[in-house]
Amino acid sequence: MSNTAQQNDLANAIRSLAMDAVEKAQSGHPGLPMGCADIATVLFTKIMKFDPQDHKWADRDRFVLSAGHGSMLLYASLYLLGYKDMTIEQIKEFRQVNSKTAGHPEYHFAQGIETTTGPLGQGVGNAVGMAIAEAKLAAEFGSDLVDHYTYALAGDGCLMEGISQESIGLAGHLKLNKLIVIWDNNGITIDGKVSNADSTDQLKRFEASGWATISVDGHDQDAIEKALIEAKQNDQPTLIAAKTTIGYGAPKKSGTAGVHGSPLGADELKAAKQALGIEYPEFEVPQDVISAWRSAGARGSQVRAEWLERLEASDKRAEFERRMAGELAPGFAEALDGFKKQLAEEQPKLATRKSSQNALEVINGALTETLGGSADLTGSNNTNTSQTKPFTADDRSGRYMHYGIREHGMAAAMNGIALHGGLIPYGGSFLCFTDYARPSIRLSALMGIRVIYVMTHDSIGLGEDGPTHQPVEHLSALRAIPNLLVLRPADATEALECWQIALESEARPSVLALSRQGLPSVRPDYAMENKSRRGAYTVAGSPEADVVIFASGSEVTIALEGMKMLEEQKGISARVVSVPSMELFEEQPDGYKDEIFGGAKARVAIEAGVGMSWARFLGDKGKFVGMTGFGASGKIEDLYSFFGITAEAIVEAVVSQM
Amino acid sequence: MSNTAQQNDLANAIRSLAMDAVEKAQSGHPGLPMGCADIATVLFTKIMKFDPQDHKWADRDRFVLSAGHGSMLLYASLYLLGYKDMTIEQIKEFRQVNSKTAGHPEYHFAQGIETTTGPLGQGVGNAVGMAIAEAKLAAEFGSDLVDHYTYALAGDGCLMEGISQESIGLAGHLKLNKLIVIWDNNGITIDGKVSNADSTDQLKRFEASGWATISVDGHDQDAIEKALIEAKQNDQPTLIAAKTTIGYGAPKKSGTAGVHGSPLGADELKAAKQALGIEYPEFEVPQDVISAWRSAGARGSQVRAEWLERLEASDKRAEFERRMAGELAPGFAEALDGFKKQLAEEQPKLATRKSSQNALEVINGALTETLGGSADLTGSNNTNTSQTKPFTADDRSGRYMHYGIREHGMAAAMNGIALHGGLIPYGGSFLCFTDYARPSIRLSALMGIRVIYVMTHDSIGLGEDGPTHQPVEHLSALRAIPNLLVLRPADATEALECWQIALESEARPSVLALSRQGLPSVRPDYAMENKSRRGAYTVAGSPEADVVIFASGSEVTIALEGMKMLEEQKGISARVVSVPSMELFEEQPDGYKDEIFGGAKARVAIEAGVGMSWARFLGDKGKFVGMTGFGASGKIEDLYSFFGITAEAIVEAVVSQM
Repeated sequence: MSNTAQQNDLANAIRSLAMDAVEKAQSGHPGLPMGCADIATVLFTKIMKFDPQDHKWADRDRFVLSAGHGSMLLYASLYLLGYKDMTIEQIKEFRQVNSKTAGHPEYHFAQGIETTTGPLGQGVGNAVGMAIAEAKLAAEFGSDLVDHYTYALAGDGCLMEGISQESIGLAGHLKLNKLIVIWDNNGITIDGKVSNADSTDQLKRFEASGWATISVDGHDQDAIEKALIEAKQNDQPTLIAAKTTIGYGAPKKSGTAGVHGSPLGADELKAAKQALGIEYPEFEVPQDVISAWRSAGARGSQVRAEWLERLEASDKRAEFERRMAGELAPGFAEALDGFKKQLAEEQPKLATRKSSQNALEVINGALTETLGGSADLTGSNNTNTSQTKPFTADDRSGRYMHYGIREHGMAAAMNGIALHGGLIPYGGSFLCFTDYARPSIRLSALMGIRVIYVMTHDSIGLGEDGPTHQPVEHLSALRAIPNLLVLRPADATEALECWQIALESEARPSVLALSRQGLPSVRPDYAMENKSRRGAYTVAGSPEADVVIFASGSEVTIALEGMKMLEEQKGISARVVSVPSMELFEEQPDGYKDEIFGGAKARVAIEAGVGMSWARFLGDKGKFVGMTGFGASGKIEDLYSFFGITAEAIVEAVVSQM
Repeated sequence: MSNTAQQNDLANAIRSLAMDAVEKAQSGHPGLPMGCADIATVLFTKIMKFDPQDHKWADRDRFVLSAGHGSMLLYASLYLLGYKDMTIEQIKEFRQVNSKTAGHPEYHFAQGIETTTGPLGQGVGNAVGMAIAEAKLAAEFGSDLVDHYTYALAGDGCLMEGISQESIGLAGHLKLNKLIVIWDNNGITIDGKVSNADSTDQLKRFEASGWATISVDGHDQDAIEKALIEAKQNDQPTLIAAKTTIGYGAPKKSGTAGVHGSPLGADELKAAKQALGIEYPEFEVPQDVISAWRSAGARGSQVRAEWLERLEASDKRAEFERRMAGELAPGFAEALDGFKKQLAEEQPKLATRKSSQNALEVINGALTETLGGSADLTGSNNTNTSQTKPFTADDRSGRYMHYGIREHGMAAAMNGIALHGGLIPYGGSFLCFTDYARPSIRLSALMGIRVIYVMTHDSIGLGEDGPTHQPVEHLSALRAIPNLLVLRPADATEALECWQIALESEARPSVLALSRQGLPSVRPDYAMENKSRRGAYTVAGSPEADVVIFASGSEVTIALEGMKMLEEQKGISARVVSVPSMELFEEQPDGYKDEIFGGAKARVAIEAGVGMSWARFLGDKGKFVGMTGFGASGKIEDLYSFFGITAEAIVEAVVSQM
């Protein structure tokens, strides 16, 4: 190691703040910030392009701390660089309620936090998405406006998680040359040595997926700088394996699992500072060190000024600014409304996955910002349209991602694309396989970002593929995730409405649950109002009806049959309420909710899934018609009668309550 | 390709049956069975050790069709080999309700189906678990009784899914030399060519994780045989990359995505049979071909007879038979009961994760069959005990798996261990990260196997790590999965009871949700009865109380405080019901349920998670005290008051109803 005194001072400022903050909180992870301080110093003071004066500058380089538990590395760096809201008071409030310095970096909490990380491997996937977005936008707007790198810092945990393989496979295939992942190769995990659980040759593994690799001493700042400069020149994504010592500087605990996730303790902290030559009091970085950091932080301001000049001179400025602001194109609502009128006239009988595709055809025509894709189920998810030429290693102008059989990697990449800005990602799979992507879907919701999951084959209506492919618990399980819109349209008109809701929901992700099987129209008349936006609304029957039948998606049709049967066979009046989104319904005013429940003497809910999320609609005596266990392999029509999800079952459920 | 006519006939019998069955069902995947027929022929007629007369023979080789959509490959092989319940009628009923020949292979449906597959990559993980079980049991019982191989057939989809990386990383590290994965390298996925989405050098990737690799022409039976014989000699796990043509034999569709998942159609089917020289009518394999298959199938009977002799002579026979039958050791219940008495005396105040460890110490002492582990959170999950020396590449006698940071791979491996028999796997992570393992947890439930998930840090009580690590929706989302026991004990006694329930549940998996934070005892008196087995029971208060408060886990203590506060401050009598398992409660007789609900005028449920699964307990007017969104980073005590999960909130919720 050959750092200069100045280089050491810069890195030690991170170490010192990290040690102090974790010690004060008596909670946190000092090991990574101490081990990666040299890497962060080089990245932030020498390599990366950004400007603390405008943390939203569109052409900044992105930094993703995939190993999110090392959050103090990021917080300390942001403070030292001069990001306005990262004050020393915030550092002192590390891991306290309402601070900006949460245990793991939380998107929105502070400037310079590009994504929420902590669940391991996610950041690698986000970084892949960011690099995709950069390449795509550069192709659209030119390198004058879009020309930046994405850096991710990943630990052994990130690389052991399966999602990392999906992400690096995708990135290598797409030759995302402006993506650089730095591996904090410290050889330590929570349980002890990495070698207790893994023997993977990571360089070889990345090379197998088409990455360039560089090995470097993670405590030699000049070597790190050289490696990063080299990586920027590669025409593939690059892995930099940086050999580090976890908890670098702590005389007894460095290089051990003991420094990973616990405060050092007063004695070891003191000894570490002594060993590192840190002589200043806690939380008090000397002015000359801060000044050096701040002046490094300010070096991007001239670059940004030049970029702003180019933007102002560009004929693409208005479109670029609209896109980066996340505003939908003018004319979008009108285009959808025109198609809605057409649907009211045509009353098509289609699977909602097909209705979704028809809506997408209009949407992709009206919006330039959608970036479609599927996890290898394009022909089933119907996520492609006439506009969606593939985005490939050779052609960055495409609007469609062949994500491969990588639902998790797809979802994490879509998070990164949405976080980058300028694009609205949507991607498809079977609803059942939301399970594979669930950690990333949760993060879409936690971050409150516009990612659209197009999940088809949404029930036993999937048919012969059987229980492994038939979602049963998934609608309830997704509805349980806070801040996630679960949209299950009943016909072509609702499918269009649900797409509109998803696209207009800037601050939350959506799951569109779509049928494989054909469904008749349940909306005979055109209505300008987006009725699905209410979450639940009456599709048929009188407000005074004796019975209310709640249903969603493909079961609305069965509910309508049940209504008719009740009338004809039992002389009982019923009303059918379509519930495309429970979340939106819960947000309605009480008056509207009361209206929907009405004064019905009996309530039934029907959905080809488990009943958990419907209990709230049923109250003490309502009945649920749906699944109580896993599905089965068979023809669609056989399955619905086999599991008793029928109009007859609705009648029976009603009669039992009367 | 140099197969003899006989070799071709054997393989073509598979192809013919697969084409016919898919065509008759007008649904299914002919591509893989046609492409892998040569591989299956070699495996089943030359290499593998099994006996169709006893599909449960403990020392049989295991075959896992990880690419489960190719189910007809397995069904056809089982029929040809002479497995009793796989009749030609079943083949004709492919993909129909109530047949044994579901769209994807379903465990329990027919003899010779070793695991349920279809969700891609899972089978690779299961196979790793089976190979772990074999190695572990061989160390315990000797190679006289346990000496078999595990074979998995995986497609490109299996290898693209992230779970495969976790599985191969684990297998390579553990040097599971009796695991052989055959990669159906056909270059085709649903969306078209693999090269649309992936450029990974799979051999290099596997080698990077310590695997041996062999490349072979997947249509040359002699070469396949040679490769398999070679693989069996390796001291590492082996990947055999078999270059195949998907839909081999179909003149127009072979080698294309068109043959992956759709019937060939009458013309192409006819042409394919002509090209392959198949001259017999549909579903009618000639007697000489069947005889050749059957005699190959019978070659294991002598081997099994010799094995039975060794078993009969073995002094380990009784223990081996008990273990393979999945019966718990005699004395188990007594050991637990003794510890339960001790807990009643000591009334310890402990986190339930610690209480779980204490229970495990007794359990691991009483049972030799438990195989513990953690996804790199041993010290947090407390899944280790004095008995759990690690299972490693060098020491197969260990009882503890360092699964690494691989929740998904762990869960899939545990499924494989349970399916193998002879061991009861349990493994730990944070409850939040059940999301990472969810596809495998679902399969544990669908298969109905005894896998125990030890999931700690089960609420915002996790504290400072914040919302990315705090489960909020997970309890509801797990309870939504059919046939899964979600057990959330409130104190040390319930923790013991829940462990007993999990271990005694032979036909379903369990999730133990355990607290990070310390909890006082809520069970002052010893009771021989396992009260948790009722799912819900009254822990305090009179049956006539005006109010019933439902709670689980760490919130039972808060419920008890609320009860006291209601009495003291409002003069309202309340009863507290602990609900360690909603699933078990639903299975109780109506009379018991009525008793638990009682005639209370007000109902409250409290849980530090979202309320979805509690709606059924609350009816029309009950109130829920819990989370409505994501958690936050902060001290435990701050978080509970920040989110209003307090005794005061219970009082308020009650008063609002009175």
